[in-house]
Amino acid sequence: MRILVSNDDGYHSEGIHVLADALETLGEVWVVAPDRENSAVSHALTLHRPLRLTRLSERRYAVDGTPTDCVTLGICQVMKEHPPDLVVSGINFGANMGDDVHYSGTVSAAFEAAIMGIPAIAVSQVLGEHFSFVPAGRVARHLAALVLERGLPKGTLLNVNVPPRPPKGLRFTRLGKRRYTEGVVEDTDPRGRVCYWIGGGDPVWEPLPGSDFLAVAEGYTSVTPLQLDMTHEGLLLSLLQDAASWDLPA
Amino acid sequence: MRILVSNDDGYHSEGIHVLADALETLGEVWVVAPDRENSAVSHALTLHRPLRLTRLSERRYAVDGTPTDCVTLGICQVMKEHPPDLVVSGINFGANMGDDVHYSGTVSAAFEAAIMGIPAIAVSQVLGEHFSFVPAGRVARHLAALVLERGLPKGTLLNVNVPPRPPKGLRFTRLGKRRYTEGVVEDTDPRGRVCYWIGGGDPVWEPLPGSDFLAVAEGYTSVTPLQLDMTHEGLLLSLLQDAASWDLPA
Amino acid sequence: MRILVSNDDGYHSEGIHVLADALETLGEVWVVAPDRENSAVSHALTLHRPLRLTRLSERRYAVDGTPTDCVTLGICQVMKEHPPDLVVSGINFGANMGDDVHYSGTVSAAFEAAIMGIPAIAVSQVLGEHFSFVPAGRVARHLAALVLERGLPKGTLLNVNVPPRPPKGLRFTRLGKRRYTEGVVEDTDPRGRVCYWIGGGDPVWEPLPGSDFLAVAEGYTSVTPLQLDMTHEGLLLSLLQDAASWDLPA
Amino acid sequence: MRILVSNDDGYHSEGIHVLADALETLGEVWVVAPDRENSAVSHALTLHRPLRLTRLSERRYAVDGTPTDCVTLGICQVMKEHPPDLVVSGINFGANMGDDVHYSGTVSAAFEAAIMGIPAIAVSQVLGEHFSFVPAGRVARHLAALVLERGLPKGTLLNVNVPPRPPKGLRFTRLGKRRYTEGVVEDTDPRGRVCYWIGGGDPVWEPLPGSDFLAVAEGYTSVTPLQLDMTHEGLLLSLLQDAASWDLPA
Repeated sequence: MRILVSNDDGYHSEGIHVLADALETLGEVWVVAPDRENSAVSHALTLHRPLRLTRLSERRYAVDGTPTDCVTLGICQVMKEHPPDLVVSGINFGANMGDDVHYSGTVSAAFEAAIMGIPAIAVSQVLGEHFSFVPAGRVARHLAALVLERGLPKGTLLNVNVPPRPPKGLRFTRLGKRRYTEGVVEDTDPRGRVCYWIGGGDPVWEPLPGSDFLAVAEGYTSVTPLQLDMTHEGLLLSLLQDAASWDLPA
Repeated sequence: MRILVSNDDGYHSEGIHVLADALETLGEVWVVAPDRENSAVSHALTLHRPLRLTRLSERRYAVDGTPTDCVTLGICQVMKEHPPDLVVSGINFGANMGDDVHYSGTVSAAFEAAIMGIPAIAVSQVLGEHFSFVPAGRVARHLAALVLERGLPKGTLLNVNVPPRPPKGLRFTRLGKRRYTEGVVEDTDPRGRVCYWIGGGDPVWEPLPGSDFLAVAEGYTSVTPLQLDMTHEGLLLSLLQDAASWDLPA
Repeated sequence: MRILVSNDDGYHSEGIHVLADALETLGEVWVVAPDRENSAVSHALTLHRPLRLTRLSERRYAVDGTPTDCVTLGICQVMKEHPPDLVVSGINFGANMGDDVHYSGTVSAAFEAAIMGIPAIAVSQVLGEHFSFVPAGRVARHLAALVLERGLPKGTLLNVNVPPRPPKGLRFTRLGKRRYTEGVVEDTDPRGRVCYWIGGGDPVWEPLPGSDFLAVAEGYTSVTPLQLDMTHEGLLLSLLQDAASWDLPA
Repeated sequence: MRILVSNDDGYHSEGIHVLADALETLGEVWVVAPDRENSAVSHALTLHRPLRLTRLSERRYAVDGTPTDCVTLGICQVMKEHPPDLVVSGINFGANMGDDVHYSGTVSAAFEAAIMGIPAIAVSQVLGEHFSFVPAGRVARHLAALVLERGLPKGTLLNVNVPPRPPKGLRFTRLGKRRYTEGVVEDTDPRGRVCYWIGGGDPVWEPLPGSDFLAVAEGYTSVTPLQLDMTHEGLLLSLLQDAASWDLPA
């Protein structure tokens, strides 16, 4: 078995080393990761400039690009003779739950694998006092072994969030909802010019039954199956039924 | 009515001016857009540094950030006294269909509005010989008027792609599938160092019935309803039914 | 006569437009400037990625790079059939005097021209209440006309700083000295992480006779001749005289 | 003795480790270096955003900024209780000679120290077959010991280039001259858009007696004293003598 590991915290982060080590017993692990932190670059692809790929040691590479760039270069260049059987992204330093998966480079790396038809898992460590990456490494290996054995439906991936304290077990969940809170903080630089930071206050979650947020809050690891296809089937149906009323006059 | 317009091609692109002009008859149009091209930054949020907001003229602003930054600053800062009734993103220079919506800054700007509970439309112009933005502007105004009147379900948006020649009409569609083609091109810089460009060859689409790609290929404007929530309900159900077999031994 | 104009505040800044207009009476003016603000990039050359050159209108170009990139592309690509007779950089929004010329993109653009053997002038507008770029434009045209007529010694350029109020006249000066003041300001981002801004407090200048700073403080435009060659001749002589005492044992 | 070490190839480059190890016998070595390669950023200062300072281990720090940022943070923040007695920058991967010192981040780091009144040395390894950083480390320690003992005149620094083969000895030199060669290479990205790389062809040097280039070509280490003050005294004198003819009519 061949496993490609990437992340968005960068090659030198602790989480990716714990992850790569944890997966070693399952097969040959290749790491292709950004050369620096890339948090919240989401599914960015670097198209306007070429990328540099640096071989650091055997099966270990750094890229001056995004997580999505890394998975693309990993599959199409580094491992092109024998593509990976599984892509695992993480362990992210911090949660990737609910609506916030849209911003996540860790989840996007897994989506890129799904676009290329390869099963994928994204693993994130929710922060809290005295957390350690070790339990998340164990969870990742457990789920990776099962996915390698059973596969995943085409166009899907597993999004995993591990609670700060050793998890009580797994829960299959849906994405939670974040309540909108104050999103912009005004600041002044030392030269007196106004500037704005995105995202002040802590996110507030709605305690929806079955959500990833609730599972983690209750001490469980959340495993949320995600789909590549974002078509809203229900709305599509109702639009089709009412199509005439949307017509654009010639 | 108050409409916030943004894009990912940047404030100085032609598409955003055509769009802002087309929407003027529907209400007060505010533009908050990146100060340069941001293609394929996807849903990136700038969290590691503060943003600069430059007022260019009445209700026109540039931001040194991403499309998602622009929508956030637009709603939470520029228009904070009276948030917009609608967010329209575009007109993008080039298609945003199928799996590629994951990479799209134009679509992400609309998703950011949806996260904040505001109806949103993303508009893209498929390229081709002798195309013009004018028909796309007309389509955008038509759909914007209907969405302002009828609303959209929470957590959804409309993703619109306008064909290169004047469209024959609208079609409600689902996201198409792109077939995987050669993704990385090796290059050598003038100093002899190897580097890699993401994405050579033209994308090849599977001609799925009902897809955005097919509608556009047949000369129609595609309108695809998208959802914020990427949970795969079917896979979630089957995982829940089989949960015991996924258990992690303590 | 052919004149190449560039700057580091970017194509859309006011200063470069005043400068280009002021020089129109002297010859054919070409503008190749960064597509966004590049302050304090100094003499950076973009070597790790290729540059995009966008033609905006006749003899007007934007580059996604630094001032030095712009001068290089301007001379070697845009104007390669007939290189310019003069390069003028500015009008910078803010002073470039004393030690600070080392940080200045405006001055570096002029140095790049000097490296390529073309006479060059860097023009900066010192800020102050009610300043206007108009007098600086007039000064630039006056000096440009004289340099086009008389030339400059190889490897030199003129660094011009115009005071905030209409100047009383020109003074030829040397670079002043800035007294070291507190250089780093600690800040905390909204997520509680510490970060550091370079450069708090206002610079304090030593009131050296003959310095650029003093000329501007007294209401004159300072014109400082700069040289490309930074060899310290005096120190070189004394090192050579004492060379034996520096020998490295084999 | 306290020594601050920085560079522009980044914290993870080999040259800075060889340098820091070589200087350990002379005093307490502190390293504050960029978290990634910064070649050719020259004397850039990061003013538009705050910087992150990461402590990697005892007296070892990485900064998400330029070499000049690193020296500023090193002196004003990291070592602010007891500023360094000497700043050494390098060992750069590649030469920094002649006019090219204007582009060099390695030399700029040393200039920043000079601006702050601290003696500084910039060390670069000229590339060639079978080169090693070890001789350059030895040269750096030798010169650092002498500069710590004897000091350097205010506003000066030593720019050192070590040849690819073990050096025959030291030579005190002046900056050489590069002959202008073809500077821009046109390229086409995989999507067919034209772009431009700065700097094709190898630089060609004029074989000036006493130049750094000649010393290195003949197998010696070149040591060039540089000055912060770029005023051209000779031109200033002749301009002053002829000042009336430059007058700007009111």
